[in-house]
Amino acid sequence: MPDPRPIYLDYNASAPIRPEAADAVARALRIGGNPSSVHAAGRAARAVMEQARAQVSSLAGMPSGSVVFLSGAAEANALAVFSAVAQGAKRLIIGATEHETTMESAKASGAVVEVLPVDGRGVADIAWLAERLGRWDAADGAPFVALMLANNETGVIQPVAEASALVRQHGGWLHVDAVQAAGKIAIDQRALGADTLSLSAHKLGGPQGVGTLVFANRARLVRQLHGGGQERSVRAGTENDPGIAGFGAAAEASLKAMASDQAAWRDAAAARLEDEAGVVVLGQGAARLDNTLCFAAEGFASELQVMQMDLAGVMVSAGSACSSGKVKASRVVEAMGRADLAPFALRVSGGWATIQDDWKAFADVWLKAYAQHRQRHAARQPAA
Amino acid sequence: MPDPRPIYLDYNASAPIRPEAADAVARALRIGGNPSSVHAAGRAARAVMEQARAQVSSLAGMPSGSVVFLSGAAEANALAVFSAVAQGAKRLIIGATEHETTMESAKASGAVVEVLPVDGRGVADIAWLAERLGRWDAADGAPFVALMLANNETGVIQPVAEASALVRQHGGWLHVDAVQAAGKIAIDQRALGADTLSLSAHKLGGPQGVGTLVFANRARLVRQLHGGGQERSVRAGTENDPGIAGFGAAAEASLKAMASDQAAWRDAAAARLEDEAGVVVLGQGAARLDNTLCFAAEGFASELQVMQMDLAGVMVSAGSACSSGKVKASRVVEAMGRADLAPFALRVSGGWATIQDDWKAFADVWLKAYAQHRQRHAARQPAA
Repeated sequence: MPDPRPIYLDYNASAPIRPEAADAVARALRIGGNPSSVHAAGRAARAVMEQARAQVSSLAGMPSGSVVFLSGAAEANALAVFSAVAQGAKRLIIGATEHETTMESAKASGAVVEVLPVDGRGVADIAWLAERLGRWDAADGAPFVALMLANNETGVIQPVAEASALVRQHGGWLHVDAVQAAGKIAIDQRALGADTLSLSAHKLGGPQGVGTLVFANRARLVRQLHGGGQERSVRAGTENDPGIAGFGAAAEASLKAMASDQAAWRDAAAARLEDEAGVVVLGQGAARLDNTLCFAAEGFASELQVMQMDLAGVMVSAGSACSSGKVKASRVVEAMGRADLAPFALRVSGGWATIQDDWKAFADVWLKAYAQHRQRHAARQPAA
Repeated sequence: MPDPRPIYLDYNASAPIRPEAADAVARALRIGGNPSSVHAAGRAARAVMEQARAQVSSLAGMPSGSVVFLSGAAEANALAVFSAVAQGAKRLIIGATEHETTMESAKASGAVVEVLPVDGRGVADIAWLAERLGRWDAADGAPFVALMLANNETGVIQPVAEASALVRQHGGWLHVDAVQAAGKIAIDQRALGADTLSLSAHKLGGPQGVGTLVFANRARLVRQLHGGGQERSVRAGTENDPGIAGFGAAAEASLKAMASDQAAWRDAAAARLEDEAGVVVLGQGAARLDNTLCFAAEGFASELQVMQMDLAGVMVSAGSACSSGKVKASRVVEAMGRADLAPFALRVSGGWATIQDDWKAFADVWLKAYAQHRQRHAARQPAA
């Protein structure tokens, strides 16, 4: 009899809520009060928010005052892009495998977008960046470069510190989407040299609907939502106090529990898939997050894999979850020069509540589904 | 011995969470999952969201597909304004007492802003609007008019249906900020003739950090946050599933329990303040929300009142809470031609958990504070 316990291996889409975060949300809901109100309830709500600000800033190794709370990483990436454009950036360099919210914000900003290419492993081409910045036209304003810390589909970790040395040298702005890296590898915003860095609560076990842009002193943010003076006048609207409280608690919990044996569990599963089905692991050879496995089995469509795994109680995804229920070929895999594999890519991602057996069960179920797929495929071949 | 129970009469800043809403948030947090994921957890998260969409749309008397979930009313008001401007509106008519998020979005949009004046009661001047639209220059694009349903500071209800008849006649766009009206008076978006209508969860007992723009078929929204295809491609970013769930539960609960005796309790308190201290009730003579009392006692500064009330355990506010802990003179009261009273205005607002004794206690505490203020004032007069 199969194990009826559903296995969730789609943390990169959304992590299950950490108990500490759920408790913090519930406590903040009970306090109520608008953090901008001067009375007791307002002050209590503000205290919750400021505690969370300290917790979240710790995750980025930054002082508390560097954190602007927003509705999520979509808004954080947009705020970085639009702030730079508002200050005269006419040309943006966006990593080829950046998240859609960064890429689409850049395209919508009115500035010219240039794509920083990645190699076959998915690692940004720093030599390209050096060459490009070396012939920068001052008429384009200060260079703005967006390079994520770790990719959402492959887990590939980018050479952000190398990029930032170049960007600094040319007086530019480096934006680092650290959404997937947070809680999985240590983040030191100053060591990374990031002018702005985006984080999302729900990717690290906090609630959905809250994120932040952490900014260095030299970064000047330009408000995109207008009205009251909340968040140092950068972001109008009553603050999401319960969401922020949950974000803080999740950030603190994820800092405490960063090390795990996840990489070994993942690699054991990947080795079985490579040995028994000849899958191609994407991003192999590059530094990767411990929790993420992206692979392709040629001819076995992503959509089919996701559905078959789901029927068997294992939740994984094809690429990012941002396309509203649609499964489409991975843009990230295409950027790595493997457009041939893009329709077959599967993403498996663990997290704080994942156990070794989850990765084992995933490999079992996937190999069984793959065998069935091969049988169906063989049956459909015309008789000789 | 004074009653130690704190009395919260600042619902217009943020309402305490309704138990139904807190439960819905907690349940959605336990489900987890990204509503855009195709697997079981994703589908469960999406089902939560779609149930809430039906609940929230009912509040506006609209079909479920008319609701776009956003991070709050600040974003909703901005989306309406920027959508109109993106479609060619070059001149915006904004009610004089609109919320700051609407007014400041309009100013930031690049379009010309004209202010629709209010009379001494705070009611929009419909004759002015008729005259202004009558000489509209087609080169300015279709007229965009923002008129809130009920004012956040005074509770004054605006003649929205009259305004919409005029706006319709001139092929324009009427945006209605219904944030404060929701859950207090019935809202029928079609009867109001609103092209877009904004709502906020936390003003009706839902969580902070979630709101909506409800749109009529004829309204075309233009996305302001770029990336994935969430919310019919109008708003990128993983949806705030727990917040949305809480919004839905609060909307449903507020629809069930709309009638109350709040107006009588409020009016009894107001009558005592008028009789014993000669306060001026702002918005008197106009239709007002049952829950809101805005008044001024000349010479007794708003800030001082708020602090003294707070020390006595009664939480009220001076104007809106949107200025990050700062108490400043009410722009709304100034627009009503009573700039002389603006530094002295106090807002008292009840809601779903308010009882008659809260209003009584408020009047007791306020009158005591006022008497002390008068004594201090008298003591400071030089001897004859």
